[in-house]
Amino acid sequence: MGIIVQKYGGTSVATAEKIKNVAQSVIREKNKGNSVIVVVSAMGHTTDYLVKLASEISPSPSNREMDMLLSTGEQVSIALLTMAIQAAGHQAVSMNAMQVGIITENVHSKARILDVKTEKLLQNLNDGKIIVVAGFQGVTPAGEITTLGRGGSDTSAVAIAAAIKADRCDIYTDVEGVYTTDPRIVPNASKLEQVSYDEMLELAYLGANVLHPRAVETAKQFNVPLRVRSTFKPDDLGTLILGVKNMEIYKPVTGVAADSSQARIVVCDVPDKPGVSAKIFSALAAKNISVDMIIQSYARQSNNTNDVAFTVSSDDVEKVLEILEPIAKELQASNVHVNDNIAKVSIVGAGMVDRPGIAADMFKSLADAGINIKMISTSEIKISCLVDKQNAKEAVKRLHEVFELGCGEIAEVKGDLPNF
Amino acid sequence: MGIIVQKYGGTSVATAEKIKNVAQSVIREKNKGNSVIVVVSAMGHTTDYLVKLASEISPSPSNREMDMLLSTGEQVSIALLTMAIQAAGHQAVSMNAMQVGIITENVHSKARILDVKTEKLLQNLNDGKIIVVAGFQGVTPAGEITTLGRGGSDTSAVAIAAAIKADRCDIYTDVEGVYTTDPRIVPNASKLEQVSYDEMLELAYLGANVLHPRAVETAKQFNVPLRVRSTFKPDDLGTLILGVKNMEIYKPVTGVAADSSQARIVVCDVPDKPGVSAKIFSALAAKNISVDMIIQSYARQSNNTNDVAFTVSSDDVEKVLEILEPIAKELQASNVHVNDNIAKVSIVGAGMVDRPGIAADMFKSLADAGINIKMISTSEIKISCLVDKQNAKEAVKRLHEVFELGCGEIAEVKGDLPNF
Repeated sequence: MGIIVQKYGGTSVATAEKIKNVAQSVIREKNKGNSVIVVVSAMGHTTDYLVKLASEISPSPSNREMDMLLSTGEQVSIALLTMAIQAAGHQAVSMNAMQVGIITENVHSKARILDVKTEKLLQNLNDGKIIVVAGFQGVTPAGEITTLGRGGSDTSAVAIAAAIKADRCDIYTDVEGVYTTDPRIVPNASKLEQVSYDEMLELAYLGANVLHPRAVETAKQFNVPLRVRSTFKPDDLGTLILGVKNMEIYKPVTGVAADSSQARIVVCDVPDKPGVSAKIFSALAAKNISVDMIIQSYARQSNNTNDVAFTVSSDDVEKVLEILEPIAKELQASNVHVNDNIAKVSIVGAGMVDRPGIAADMFKSLADAGINIKMISTSEIKISCLVDKQNAKEAVKRLHEVFELGCGEIAEVKGDLPNF
Repeated sequence: MGIIVQKYGGTSVATAEKIKNVAQSVIREKNKGNSVIVVVSAMGHTTDYLVKLASEISPSPSNREMDMLLSTGEQVSIALLTMAIQAAGHQAVSMNAMQVGIITENVHSKARILDVKTEKLLQNLNDGKIIVVAGFQGVTPAGEITTLGRGGSDTSAVAIAAAIKADRCDIYTDVEGVYTTDPRIVPNASKLEQVSYDEMLELAYLGANVLHPRAVETAKQFNVPLRVRSTFKPDDLGTLILGVKNMEIYKPVTGVAADSSQARIVVCDVPDKPGVSAKIFSALAAKNISVDMIIQSYARQSNNTNDVAFTVSSDDVEKVLEILEPIAKELQASNVHVNDNIAKVSIVGAGMVDRPGIAADMFKSLADAGINIKMISTSEIKISCLVDKQNAKEAVKRLHEVFELGCGEIAEVKGDLPNF
């Protein structure tokens, strides 16, 4: 008997039939004696439809009006899901962000949550009602409607769970949990029963699309136990994400991830003097470009220059080249080189810290497979290697095997293979 | 230079192209040096679509959740229209009912407006912005979302105009104004330049579908000058509706209307004693049935009984018969008779009061045409006659001619003939 926050994404509420199924899933939790708050996204392709409408009106609609427009999608979902729960004989009430008081900063299209008011939520829970809250949206202290950007509904759910001190936040999705690696690449990838916030964060950033890193960060900050589980298999407990894993989970590596959405940029032969890196990365930061791996090689003794290499999202390459052009000239760089035929393969595990040799094992197994490593970057719980895109799949398979992550079963998976 | 409130209905904003046209119409008013507040309805068939969605979820969705659902339609419209105005280079801002503070009573699906806050409206107008407000919706003092029911957006516009002390409220629609009668029946019906609130109210209640009576009542109460005009003919001034017409407008009859949506009910041979009518009409009122014309004949001397006849909306007939069954038994009525093959033909005019003989002229011209009058009811500015449905069209034509309402022109009209 506690408070459970559930979150269902757009595909889970795409049709009237699916909404009725979600209603049953909500009621199951309620019937266990729990108080239930449900967070939902907009139905299926609603957001795409609204974006298209806006594009017919204006080539560059203002972010404020886009938020006004898009936030209607979630409001439709909460009304319909509440009707479905009521039709099944349970008390329920829908609330949009303004009614709950999901307070955000005054930034449109990607606002961060500052506070979630609990007064009205608690009042409705005390009345025995299931509460259905609109995800993805917020309101500023001045009453402006905002949206939270990518991963918004997951973040709404976690923030509400944190504010109301929920016992758990269940993220219902179309996969069964978090896997040791992509089951489309390694069919015997095993579902993780537990994973720590930090590991999940690394996995999320490294290309595992199950949860947005932002939601994981919020869960970590407020210590909200998160469960990723399948909308279609209600009895499967999925993967629990929490602060510290149980002691018996001892494998040093938890998962293997691959991300082929990045490109490597090398600024060649820049002078080896203070301020060079700062100039390059300040300029990129000023234009809001996220840089991932950064490598600066040893200075060449011959001419006192070196190369600065880094990775960015493939989508940003054009913008990056534009920004770098004047800087490369100023620094008398010999060349700016782009390679988007790359993939980043990473291993993640909280157990790495006190286990020497994990990195060496990784490099050795890639070398054994004849895979060349182009760049390396590490954190306390992660090692990433940049390899040629065509080697990514093989690299993932090898690493998954070497670190003994497989299970006996062959996972049943849908969807296309990632485009390596 | 004043404040103008404009209202555009669902057909005026049905597509991206139409929304752009409305934006131009708004900007034209702004360019005259006026401050402009625009009230819009949901796009075209949005409301029907949402109602259908709800019906797929639940046979009887709660009014609260229907309001939550339907109010999204207007929110989509205000975002898109604001984008269109901005794309045309003007400052604009959208506001939903919660943001404006359109306060209603705590009744879902047909709430009445209690108050419209002007603080934020004035602030935005002072900043030089065009404000686009969602019609049809409101919010209770406790923050519940409500809708206003039929004629809601017209009423929103008038209420905002009243609160902000606007110089005028322009209701843009697909007709060019208020006509002396339906131009589909009488091709030389003339457009009225001016009409008084009271006349417009009678015309609205009598079947002229241009404006909802509720909006007219609100305009009358707060003395808001209303203009009904065409979205597609911006230079046409349409019809001005105001408190007192100009002195030179002297015709005793302003318009002729016909309404074939009613049915006549006669409760036959009830005792002629106090309390009989009260019993019948209290029972109907308790079930929220609106009764229009009521006639009680002279008591028959022979058996001391009489007949009570009245008209109700055809849609209500079944419900009325159900309500009347036990009462008719109790009163020992000989029969309850229904006739829905009737139409109500009315003449309206503020000039009738001090012109004797208008009623006689009406009855005589119907008699000359061989049209039998089945019931008569009058008010200070209106005379209505119930006739057989097949005679309604001819009756309208005759009366329009007798009271000299025609103009030289033949109106160009679209749409089907009313179903007489």
